[in-house]
Parts: sequence; C-alpha cells; structure tokens
Amino acid sequence: MQNVSMKALQPFINHHVPITTRGATHRLTSVRSSYRDFFLEAMPSKTSNAANRLAESFSQMLSQQIESIHLQRSINESNMMSMLENKSNVPISSPKENISEKWREIHGSNNWDGLLDPLHPWLRQEIVKYGEFAQATYDAYDLDPYSEYCGSCRYSRDRLFDTLGLTGHGYNVTKYIYATSSIELPRWLERSQLAETWSKHSNWMGYVAVSDDNESKRIGRRDIVIVWRGTVSISEWYEDFQNDLEGFGYGNAKVVQGFLSIYASKCDTSRYNKTSASEQVMEELSKLVNFYQKRGEEVSLTITGHSLGGALALLNAYEAAATFTDVHVSVISFASPRVGNSGFRDELQELGVKTLRLVVKQDVIPCMPGMVFSEYLQNFDDITGGLEWVYTHVGVEFKLDARVSPYLKKGLQFQGHHMLETYLHLVDGFESSETPFRDDAKRDIALVNKETDLLVSELKIPPRWYQVANKGLVQNGHGRWVKPKRDQDDIPDPTLEEQSNQDQNKPSSVLCP
Amino acid sequence: MQNVSMKALQPFINHHVPITTRGATHRLTSVRSSYRDFFLEAMPSKTSNAANRLAESFSQMLSQQIESIHLQRSINESNMMSMLENKSNVPISSPKENISEKWREIHGSNNWDGLLDPLHPWLRQEIVKYGEFAQATYDAYDLDPYSEYCGSCRYSRDRLFDTLGLTGHGYNVTKYIYATSSIELPRWLERSQLAETWSKHSNWMGYVAVSDDNESKRIGRRDIVIVWRGTVSISEWYEDFQNDLEGFGYGNAKVVQGFLSIYASKCDTSRYNKTSASEQVMEELSKLVNFYQKRGEEVSLTITGHSLGGALALLNAYEAAATFTDVHVSVISFASPRVGNSGFRDELQELGVKTLRLVVKQDVIPCMPGMVFSEYLQNFDDITGGLEWVYTHVGVEFKLDARVSPYLKKGLQFQGHHMLETYLHLVDGFESSETPFRDDAKRDIALVNKETDLLVSELKIPPRWYQVANKGLVQNGHGRWVKPKRDQDDIPDPTLEEQSNQDQNKPSSVLCP
Repeated sequence: MQNVSMKALQPFINHHVPITTRGATHRLTSVRSSYRDFFLEAMPSKTSNAANRLAESFSQMLSQQIESIHLQRSINESNMMSMLENKSNVPISSPKENISEKWREIHGSNNWDGLLDPLHPWLRQEIVKYGEFAQATYDAYDLDPYSEYCGSCRYSRDRLFDTLGLTGHGYNVTKYIYATSSIELPRWLERSQLAETWSKHSNWMGYVAVSDDNESKRIGRRDIVIVWRGTVSISEWYEDFQNDLEGFGYGNAKVVQGFLSIYASKCDTSRYNKTSASEQVMEELSKLVNFYQKRGEEVSLTITGHSLGGALALLNAYEAAATFTDVHVSVISFASPRVGNSGFRDELQELGVKTLRLVVKQDVIPCMPGMVFSEYLQNFDDITGGLEWVYTHVGVEFKLDARVSPYLKKGLQFQGHHMLETYLHLVDGFESSETPFRDDAKRDIALVNKETDLLVSELKIPPRWYQVANKGLVQNGHGRWVKPKRDQDDIPDPTLEEQSNQDQNKPSSVLCP
Repeated sequence: MQNVSMKALQPFINHHVPITTRGATHRLTSVRSSYRDFFLEAMPSKTSNAANRLAESFSQMLSQQIESIHLQRSINESNMMSMLENKSNVPISSPKENISEKWREIHGSNNWDGLLDPLHPWLRQEIVKYGEFAQATYDAYDLDPYSEYCGSCRYSRDRLFDTLGLTGHGYNVTKYIYATSSIELPRWLERSQLAETWSKHSNWMGYVAVSDDNESKRIGRRDIVIVWRGTVSISEWYEDFQNDLEGFGYGNAKVVQGFLSIYASKCDTSRYNKTSASEQVMEELSKLVNFYQKRGEEVSLTITGHSLGGALALLNAYEAAATFTDVHVSVISFASPRVGNSGFRDELQELGVKTLRLVVKQDVIPCMPGMVFSEYLQNFDDITGGLEWVYTHVGVEFKLDARVSPYLKKGLQFQGHHMLETYLHLVDGFESSETPFRDDAKRDIALVNKETDLLVSELKIPPRWYQVANKGLVQNGHGRWVKPKRDQDDIPDPTLEEQSNQDQNKPSSVLCP
C-alpha cells in the first residue's frame, strides 16, 4: 500500500538515491505493514484522517523504537501512592545554586560533554527553567473559538509570569511576538469563530524576557530568553509542506518553507504583522543587547521552544548568531522536528550556535520530516550528507525514555509523549541512562496530565484537567452568566507594540521604569 | 429490518392486538426505514450502540412529530444579539406575587383548566421554581469518576441552595435521599473508579425541602417539596428493562420494574440504604406533615423530578397520597417517561394526585417505553385501556415546542431537547400555543448550554460550559496540584442521616434549631 509519506519521497528516490538504498526502502515497507494495524487501533477514534495517514508513516519508525522489554523497575503501586503522598508536602524544586562560574558549559560551550549522562543537576534545573518558559506559551494561549481573543495571549506582558507562577525564575517579559504566514498553512492559525475578533491574520507566537539583577548574578550574565510557542497539532498540518525547502541565510542552508513562512512573513494590512516575527524579535534583541552591553554587562541569548517552537527557535538562533557575533547564542529545544538540510546544520555550527535538543524516544514528531527515510539515511551520512535535500537534525541530542517513569501509562501514547509537560517530567526524573527515575525528583507529577491522559490511574489525577471554571463565563450582578470583557491591559494592543518598536533608546518599560 | 423495540413488542402483538392494529404496525415499519438514515447521521459519533439501536425505534415517532414547517418567526439575528444585550442587565425573574388564594388551582385542583394556554404567569413562575429544584440535583451531583465521592451530592444539605443560588425561593433542605437497586440496572449507578469511595452501592437520589415562613405566607400553605434526581443517560439503560412490569400499590397498578427497584430497594450491608429511598422519604414526610399539622398549618406535598426523576416522583406521589389522605399531593414532572399501566393511572387519579407533565415535543424520552406502539394505541384507548400491559401517561400534559425559541438551534438535538434547562427555557418563553417566544422572558438564556450545544452560535455562549476550574484540583502551599479533601460537612454521613431518621419528634435541625 502506498502511503502519503512514501509518495512524497518518490521523486527523491528516483533521482538521488543509489540503487542499494532503494532496495532498503522497499524492505522497510514490508516490515511496516504488520505493525500498522496495531498502531492504528491504539489511536483515539477522534483522530483525523490526516493523522491516520501519518500514523502509517510512523509505524515503521516506532516498530524499531518500541521494544517489548520494559526497562522499568517493578514499583509496587501502593508504594507509588505513598511516594506521591510524601511528595505532596515537599517544595516543587530544589534550592538554586550559584552557577555563574559554569554557565558557559551549561549552555554548551563544550557541547555538553560530560554533563548529560549522568545529568548535571545544575543543567537539569536550567533545562526545566527554559522548558517552563516554553510551557507558558501553551498555558496562557487563548484557544477558545468562542473568544474574540482566540489566538492571543490571555494575559498582558506584565501579568504573564505572575499569573502562571513563574516569577520565581527571576525574569521579566519585555516583548510579545506575533506571527502571520504568507503561504497557506492549513490549521496553523487559531481563529475565533466570531465575526469581531482582535485579529484575523495573526497569532501570538511567543515572547522575549530578560533575567533580573538577582538572577543575572546567580547565572553569571544578563540572559535574554526568546521563547517560541509551538503547537501540539503539528502532525495535523505538517505533511502539507514537509517537502518544500527554501533557501535561508548566507550559504547553502535550506529550511522547511512552512517554518520560514511563519518566522519571516509580514502583511501591510494586518494590525500585528506589519513587521514579521523575525523583525519583531531582532529589533527587540538589538535594543536589549545594545542596552546591556553599554552598561558593560555580559549578555547571552537563550532561545527555546517546543515542537514547532523548537523549529522557529533554530531559525531565530541562526539569524541572531549572524547578527550578534559577540554574544553566546544557545538553543534548548523540546520535541523539535527537523528544520533544514545539512547546509543549515553546518552553518549553525559555523555561527557558534549551541543546540541542546531534547527528544523523548517514543515521540514521533522529532522524526519529521523524512521519518523512515532520513532516519535510515543517517547511516549513510558520509555518502549523503552533502546532498542538500536531506533533512538533518542539529546540535546535541538528549534522549529521554518515557518507559523509565513509573508514573506514566505504558504503550503507545501518540499525543501524550509529545507534550512538553511530559518532557519536563522526564528531565526532572533523569539521573542517567543506566539508573531508574530519580527518587528525589520534585517537580509536580500532576502537571503531566494537564492536557493528556498519561498518568497511571492510581495517581487519581483526572485527565486533561487544565480548564477554566465555566469556560470563562461569570455571573454578573443579576446572576446572569456572561463572558466578561478582558481587562484593557490583557488585550493585545498594536499601538503599544509599535511604540515599543519605534523607541530605539530603551528596550522596554519593565526594565526602564 | 427487525429492531429492538419491535422485537420486544412481538409477544404483545401476537397475543393481544386485534388484526387491524397489526396491519397498522407493519405500515409504520416501512415509513420508519426512510427516516432512520437521516436520524442516525445526525447523531454524535460517540453515541453508543445501545443509543443507536434506540434511535431506530425513535425514528418513526420523530418522523410524525417533526414537521418541515417552522413555526418560528423570522427574527433578525443581530436583533437577537441586541435583545440579549438588553437583557444582560435585567433581573433574571419577575417579582413574586402573593398566590395564597390561588395555590390549589396552581397545583391542579381544577386539572389546570384555563391556566395552561395561555399560561398563567403565576403558574409559570411556580413551574420554574420546582424545575430549578430539580435542576439542583444535576448541578450538585458529583459525576467525576476520579472523585472518591462520585455519585454523591457535592454539598451538604445546609449549603446546597446557597451554593447554587437558590435561596431566593425560600425553602430549606431537611433530608437527602439515597437509592440503591436490587435488580441489575446497567449504567444506572454512578461509581467512582477509585478503590476507596464513600459508597459502593448507593447514589444520592434527591432531597426533601420545606418552605420557610415567608414563602409559606406567599404561597398560602407550608409546602413540602420532594425532589428526585434524574439521569440524562436514561436512554442508555432504559431498554434493558422496559418490558418488565411489576405490581405496585393496592389495586391493579403495575409499574416499570426498574423504576420500582430504584425506589424501593434496600440492602442490609450498605451504609446508606439500610432503608430504601421510599422508606427514607416517607419517614421524613411523616415527621414533617405531623409537625406542621400539629401547629395547625395547612400542608401540601409537591413532588418533582426530571426524566427518571419524573418517574420516581409518580411512584412517590402514589405512596404519599395513599398515606396522607388529607394532604394535597401534586406532581410537576419534566420529560418523564411512562411509568405504569392504566391501572396505575386510574389509581393515582382515585388517590387525588394531580400531575402536570411537561413534555418538549422534540424530546423522545417521554415516548418511552412503548414508543410507536403505545403512541399508536392511544387512539384505541376505549378498546385497550383496560388491558393491564399498556403503558399509559398520567395527568395533564403541557406540551412545549423547541422550535418556538429563536435562541435554539434547529434540527434534531437528541440530547439537548431532553435537558431540563431546555424545558425551563421553553416554559419561561411560553405565552400560549399561538404566540411566539415571550419577549419579556427573563430567565438567563446561557443556562441552556450548561451541558449541551443547543444555543445558536450567534449568542457566543460556549457549549457545555458548566465545569469546575481544573477539574477540582487546587494548588497547595507548595504549588502542587492536589485534589482537596472535602469539607467534613459536605461528606455524606450515614450516621447523621440515621439519627435524623430515628428521632421521631422533630423533622430536622433546619426547622427546629
């Protein structure tokens, strides 16, 4: 049976791949078919046809990855409950230590050599910090199709961290990023069902934040973090553009056209994207870097994102490193798909971008695009690495295994294994690839089930529990249920964003009161 | 094609029905098949097979009921929005008038002659009051399978009306009712998925409440209301016992065995049902009636319920009227299915029970059991009325038409048309069968969508919006998400209920502080 992915690969197979490789591809096809049925059966019934078609493509990948041997220790489940009970009165994180002497290594100056396995506790804490910044883009995102602000952030810059309980990280948000897209990306843009909305053409796509004085002291420099929002529905629309590569940057780099379109598109008639996401970010970074360097401070750029956000983080890192040649640029990405060809990978390396790429072994998104195909060709890197059409991962991979956590359900969890909260749970529990889930992991386990049904039922945590009371309706003075108007501060205001853009002298109101 | 309902009716057709009727039944079958496809297509895909089979049985009924002509006025939808906007700052009900001179008519002493069409505003207000008491049993019911209190009421007696905003009606809850079932009723009992739960065998089934002094003055007597909880999943399990009739009462009455089992079952080993629901209620009523009659007050019993609750209300009314022969007993039921045979109907009449039965024309539950069959035989009442096996509706029917409301979606709304909030919306908007939806109806329209998706999208009210924040999880002092322990007062306590039962001298702490 011909599936979408195979069809898409056909031109490559015919024109570029040596005979031996073609044979291998055919052999894989037969292995796949036996596995497919099981995988399709395990998928939730509401999954779309597109996802079903994708599932077929993933099946071969998965059949190699998922082994029948469970690495997991046999943990008595009543023990687990009491373990959890004990944890309920423990702080959700360990005390922070001063990492100012070590920050360059933690951000990859030695390519994370010796820091990953076993995982250095300081690095673990920093990964979780950036991951929680990325998670904020999901938690604050307005996905309600009945909201006139659908596709925006529910809170103003000033309230974001406070509302989500992230002030403890010691950063302040200076800028919101909006994106549009010049090419047709079905299902990418979240749109309100209502006629009157805050914007028809833009979505909130992330933010820029800066470490405050205390945190800067602890981490040894002024850290500017750029956070890119992802989307968990990436598999739904990804196949629509996975084969289109477009030139990017100064050399032979090519990247997935869809990602580039989100990153670089603008539209004169839109309210939020008269400038592109790229321009918005680069302008803000110029101001910030300039501002702090003038004060004699060392500055770093840390770019993070999950899924689609991880892809945008790489594009952004390329541009930032090419612009700010004297600034350390690192990427900490979660569940990122492949973004470009080997030229893109090589040029990122030349630019000195350090990338730590977290991947859950059971998550299929990082295998995109290319999947079976490129996965296979990695074994032939010396032959094919120079071919511009091969999608290539960049940076250092940090692999997590969902089976190690005794708190997670076993078996295929298509969506659950891709969720950022799952990644953060697994990082928190990771000691080394040889040891079981950390006994003293402190992160709240309940967070895993925010948007999934991945925790074992013994934990009594309801699935998909992250929801607002009465879908945001509140009773007015007469007892009528109404959708309250948003606070003026929480309504996206392009005038404000433009003012911030036009004023080149100061980076933001938060930093310069 | 033979469907479940027809198969079930086969023995009756063979043994009791005259030849002419048999022919008619066959003609109906052919009409049905053409309609079935459309109906099945309109059903949500997650509907179970049982519901699908039922849908086949309903199709004939519906094909007669749903006409293509829309009675509805053409209301400009932007007008509708502004109408709703205007309403948002208006009280949700009209001022209450003193009905003490009229209360007997309002409770059916003249079989509601001249009060229904046009609908008397005092009657409308009383119907809504009792309907809101019945709605409270849904709003307060713990349906969360991850709660150890699943199947109980979420609030203690003292807090119920306050929490749900019903104190304005001027009643106090004196007793909670629990039910079990001695026969197998699949899917009737709500059970927690957890090992440790408040009860394995009982569900909260309703409550008894009494009008306070002020309300008693306004309505001309001390009103004791008995409220029976229903279930919207009635169609899921109803077919399992629809053909079993069982003797009930003093004469030839027979009633659906499943209803009787819920009403009258007890279990020595259960915590909440050492006495049956019937015994719990009758004991409380004895105390209350005795208490107020001794004080020289006139007492009335008003029994209400929706769906299954409407069926239980009739059983309860029969028993109460047979016990308290000097007390006015009335039933105001919503969407009640048929409960018994013509003997049951006749004996209720002999006992003086006055029943007002509200039915939405598009709701299929009131057509159960029997459906096509009995619906058809109603035309032959003089021939067949004496046959004990014919399911018969009792009392005065008050028919509502969902198409009259400009706020509701058109077309088949299998679940939405059965919901109690839909009934209350339609009663509130009903002036007469000849006039459009009342312009000055004040009830909050948003309530319709609490558990359905029935409101037109222009109203911007999200579907199924009635939900608690984060499924009841809250953050503890460490920021961990935990399921809070219930207040001790809100945990069902059999000792308390038993004490109240054993103390024959006073009806309840609320009334006798």
